[in-house]
Amino acid sequence: MAGTNSAKIKNTTLANLSAPTIILVEPQLGENIGMAARAMLNCGLSDLRLVNPRDGWPSESANATAAGANQVIKNTSVFETTAEAVSDLNLVFAATARKRDMINRIVTPRQAAKEMHETFNHKDESVGVLFGPESKGLSNNDVTQADSIIMVPVNPSFNSLNLAQAVYVIGYEWYLKAIDNQSGSHTTFSKKPKLANKSEVNGIIRHLTDKLDQTSFFYVKEKRPVMLRNLRNIFQRAKLTEQEARTLRGVISSLTKNS
Amino acid sequence: MAGTNSAKIKNTTLANLSAPTIILVEPQLGENIGMAARAMLNCGLSDLRLVNPRDGWPSESANATAAGANQVIKNTSVFETTAEAVSDLNLVFAATARKRDMINRIVTPRQAAKEMHETFNHKDESVGVLFGPESKGLSNNDVTQADSIIMVPVNPSFNSLNLAQAVYVIGYEWYLKAIDNQSGSHTTFSKKPKLANKSEVNGIIRHLTDKLDQTSFFYVKEKRPVMLRNLRNIFQRAKLTEQEARTLRGVISSLTKNS
Repeated sequence: MAGTNSAKIKNTTLANLSAPTIILVEPQLGENIGMAARAMLNCGLSDLRLVNPRDGWPSESANATAAGANQVIKNTSVFETTAEAVSDLNLVFAATARKRDMINRIVTPRQAAKEMHETFNHKDESVGVLFGPESKGLSNNDVTQADSIIMVPVNPSFNSLNLAQAVYVIGYEWYLKAIDNQSGSHTTFSKKPKLANKSEVNGIIRHLTDKLDQTSFFYVKEKRPVMLRNLRNIFQRAKLTEQEARTLRGVISSLTKNS
Repeated sequence: MAGTNSAKIKNTTLANLSAPTIILVEPQLGENIGMAARAMLNCGLSDLRLVNPRDGWPSESANATAAGANQVIKNTSVFETTAEAVSDLNLVFAATARKRDMINRIVTPRQAAKEMHETFNHKDESVGVLFGPESKGLSNNDVTQADSIIMVPVNPSFNSLNLAQAVYVIGYEWYLKAIDNQSGSHTTFSKKPKLANKSEVNGIIRHLTDKLDQTSFFYVKEKRPVMLRNLRNIFQRAKLTEQEARTLRGVISSLTKNS
């Protein structure tokens, strides 16, 4: 089957970005192809190409492990040679765990993601990443189809990365860069409640201090200021909401009901 | 089986760094446990804990997919509750794909890695990450055992991340930061005090709950669980030091002296 798919298959969420094409060269296990497809779609990638999959295509086991990434599996195209599979791409990376006896430029997934996005600033430029068979990785010949090598940083004493993990980490770095370009980085709270203002926080501290004085908590008088400061610190750090401030007032009242 | 393993099992390549503990709560498939173990070791992580694995432990299928990460599988410990599994940890993250109807601090894997390394500048402080069952993720109760939530940035229209992928991406960010810290600059906190571990924090909550029950604080019985969860949240978020934990125990005792 020829490469009838464009490298620019749109996906719903990142419609204005061209995601990299993933090319699995001689993949052995359908399970890994399916898991790779799932990992791709997790990261907004959807163009999957296979070069001579060992067990043929389509694959039942790939369908099973794709876990809903049908869109990727359905549009997967199959090629006979790596050269054909990359022929329409403008920038190609080769993912490999081994250093080669060749002069190659080696980048991390993060650096590769940066370069992919630079490429995509150019309309109609498309990018792809080659992955070798599970057992032995890409041949040197396949590596020569690439502009640069991507090496995933990995524990050198246990560096055998599952194929789908390798696809995922490269997709992940691309996706981070994609959403960063779209919206900038941010930290969010799952629900944005109104924070207590400082007089409410001070109210808690005052209420608590009164009660602690009544119960002789500060029996070493010289330590009272520093202990108060430490207590205040705890409640400041917690960034209390209005509701929580009310709850804490209730807690103090309840605990001291009989004193 | 109790948690006889230390969170600080050394690994050969990053011997001077304490890697985070991975806690899988009620994992369903042995395959996923094995793949998670492999992903962990790829990133230099080796302390794996399970809370009530559905199909029991040890697991043939976990051994098979671990693909050589025997060291991790062999040392895996099993717990009955999430609270027990995290009791010796000082800083706990909960990995979840869903936003919760609770006040939680949410960080990316990258930000979490940064915070983990800050913690580890303190000898004897250990960190862990909670992952829920494949089908439904962590319960809200499990999430309240954590200081912060980690959400992996993922394509919102296909956000079901395989368990091992989620473990991997968090390990990957930790590992990148680890090799970065080894070779270059890093931040130290010479004066940073030791954080309370989770059993100390749980001790405060329990002490407080007992006293609040005695003083009929929870007069609307149905609201007790959610109020407790909210209270726990306040103290989790504050990231209490050991000293502060002791102080708060003293505060509760003092306030309830006469009750």
